[in-house]
Parts: sequence; structure tokens; C-alpha cells
Amino acid sequence: MNYQKIPDETIKRMPMYLRAFSMLKTENRDSISSSQLAERLGMSPPQIRKDLSYFGAFGTRGVGYPVASTADQIRGILKLDVTQKAVLVGAGRLGAAIAEYPGFASFGFDIAAIFDNDPSKIGTKIGKNVVEDIAKIDTIKSRDIHLAILAIPADAAQPVVDGLADCCIKGILNLSACHLAVPKSIKVVTIDLAMELGTLPYYM
Amino acid sequence: MNYQKIPDETIKRMPMYLRAFSMLKTENRDSISSSQLAERLGMSPPQIRKDLSYFGAFGTRGVGYPVASTADQIRGILKLDVTQKAVLVGAGRLGAAIAEYPGFASFGFDIAAIFDNDPSKIGTKIGKNVVEDIAKIDTIKSRDIHLAILAIPADAAQPVVDGLADCCIKGILNLSACHLAVPKSIKVVTIDLAMELGTLPYYM
Repeated sequence: MNYQKIPDETIKRMPMYLRAFSMLKTENRDSISSSQLAERLGMSPPQIRKDLSYFGAFGTRGVGYPVASTADQIRGILKLDVTQKAVLVGAGRLGAAIAEYPGFASFGFDIAAIFDNDPSKIGTKIGKNVVEDIAKIDTIKSRDIHLAILAIPADAAQPVVDGLADCCIKGILNLSACHLAVPKSIKVVTIDLAMELGTLPYYM
Repeated sequence: MNYQKIPDETIKRMPMYLRAFSMLKTENRDSISSSQLAERLGMSPPQIRKDLSYFGAFGTRGVGYPVASTADQIRGILKLDVTQKAVLVGAGRLGAAIAEYPGFASFGFDIAAIFDNDPSKIGTKIGKNVVEDIAKIDTIKSRDIHLAILAIPADAAQPVVDGLADCCIKGILNLSACHLAVPKSIKVVTIDLAMELGTLPYYM
């Protein structure tokens, strides 16, 4: 299927729509209007209609969006209709929390490997994974892993990222509070909790 | 000082500029041009100039932005020139990781209290804080705390938020993967790691 160029801001919101439609499915809802959906998500109905229209006009006036097929369609667009394996780098407190974060499975993500450089952590078990030695990170090349999650100190991040770039990694969720230099073939999403919190006092 | 209405997207980027200017200060840099700053942050120079111009044209052509005073100015605008106390709700694995996240202090945040509803956690120490009983959350009213960080399961979040709304909380960093219904007086930033990861396969 061919789609027109979709803005990054719309792509950012698609997982939120997917989660909403998945939840509606478990509630046995057949359809939902853009205004009902807007109320659930704290958004405006026109924004939702515009976002979803990028993927074809699959809502019907007076009826709304069919829940099951819209969920499937969004999942397909986001390539979340297949299991996506991810490697977690960093088995500290934050890494351990991430490894057991229940939300990943609902989007079809599988934390398939965990690496660290701390000898006291290597060999220990976190969830289903045994923590591996970061020196052996290049083994992920043959393990069909194309996503990485970084939960390591900022000053250790860039060398790790350089290694990941050689290992067929195409997307990085970066929780190390720093900007990463990556080749154009790699997409990075950085989350810095302090920066997120940092916007709030302005509005108080 | 009076500023024109500043877009949310610009406010979102301001903590990133603050971090960059703070870092430049520790490197003893006196000034930086928008193109040098753009390279450090992986952004475009015009975007940076536009963002910073909302706060007055404090860069000089050919010289750039003065590092120390720009850092101070941004800090003042974001109200991060005073210590901002935050309450953390949720002392599980993620909460514990957040409590010890080193990035908060650099923005002047102080995790001043931690609450949980789990008797096995109440009374234990995380960093400098002793975990308190969520039943006593209303004690924060008298403790000059106006920010909250939520790291609790999604199905437990809304009742907690309703309680926080009665406790003078004005900003919430929400790590519980759900949309929160709040009064207009409260600003919420929600971070769902699975949703952030969820955008990456689309680009692969």
C-alpha cells in the first residue's frame, strides 16, 4: 500500500491511537466516533480525523471508526503486526525497570537480550534474559534484533551507539540523557525525564 | 518581564537548550553561535534562533549567544532558578530508578517525598527519603510541593491523581501508561516508553 508522506508528529501519535483502539477492542466496542475518541484521549476531534485520514478515510460519518479493523490497520502501518525484538543496554535500576515494563508486550515488542559492562551484573537473570557482556554486543547481528533501548550513563552512551550502528540496529530509544550522533540510517528517540519535568514549572 | 505567547513546542525544547548552555558553562565557553549549538543538538540553526528569539534577541551576530547569561535567562523563564520540590508516587522498580536519577538535581529539582500503598515498601528508605503511606498524601499540602511524578500501574493512577489535585499539585510527570483526567489548573506530561518505542519500526 502506498501512503503520502506522513508528518513525524502524526506518527508520534499513532501508538496512542493504537493503544486506544486495542483497549476498545477488549471492551467489545464495535465502533467509536472521532469525538468519543477525542474525549478519551484529551485531544480535539479534528486533530484525530486529520491524523487518521493520512492512512485513508476509514471512518464513516455517523458511525465512526470500526474498532477491530482500525486497530489492525494502525498496527500494520507501524509495523507492529510482527514481533519486534529489542536489545536493552544497561542492567542497572532503570534498565531492570524497563526490562519488566509490561507495556512493551502489548505493542508486540520483545526484549530479546540485555547487555551490561558490569561483571557483577553479567550472568544474572532479569525476567527471561540473562545479562550478557557488552563486549559481545556484536552477537546481536545474527539474532534478528533491529531496535535498541539505552539505559546507561550519558558519558558511556556514544561508544555503545557506535557499536550498535555496526550491528544492524535501525532504531534507538535513548534514556541516557544526552544527544547521540548516529548515521542517517538510524532513528533515535531520546527521553530525558528531567527535561520532561523541566517544562512544567513554566506553566505553574 | 513580559513575553509574547510562546508555543508549547518551543517550551518543550527550552530544557534542552538549558542543559546545553549549562554544559557549555562547565566547559568554560563564553559564547556559542546558533550553528555550533545546532550541531551539538542535532537541530537546525534557524529553529534555534526562532526558539530563543521568543525570549528576546539575546544573541549577537558574529559572536553568538553569551553562555552564562543565556543559561541564567532560560533558567529564569522556566522557573528553574529556584528549587522545585516534587513528590514521587510509586516506590517500585521504576520509582526507585527515578528517585535516584541524577538528572533531576541539575535542573534544580528535589524529590522531596515518596509515597506508595505497599506496606512492605512504606518506611523503607530510597535515597534520602523514607517511603510514606499514600493514605497520608494530603500532608504534601503543607510542604511546598507542587510537582508530582507518577510511577504506578495505569489502573491505580486516576484515583491518585484525583487526590493530588486536592493537594495543590500543578504539574504531573506521568509514567503510568494512561491518559489522566485532570482539572485545567494541572499540566500533565505523559511518557509511555512503549509508545515511544512504538514509532521506531515505522522508520526501519
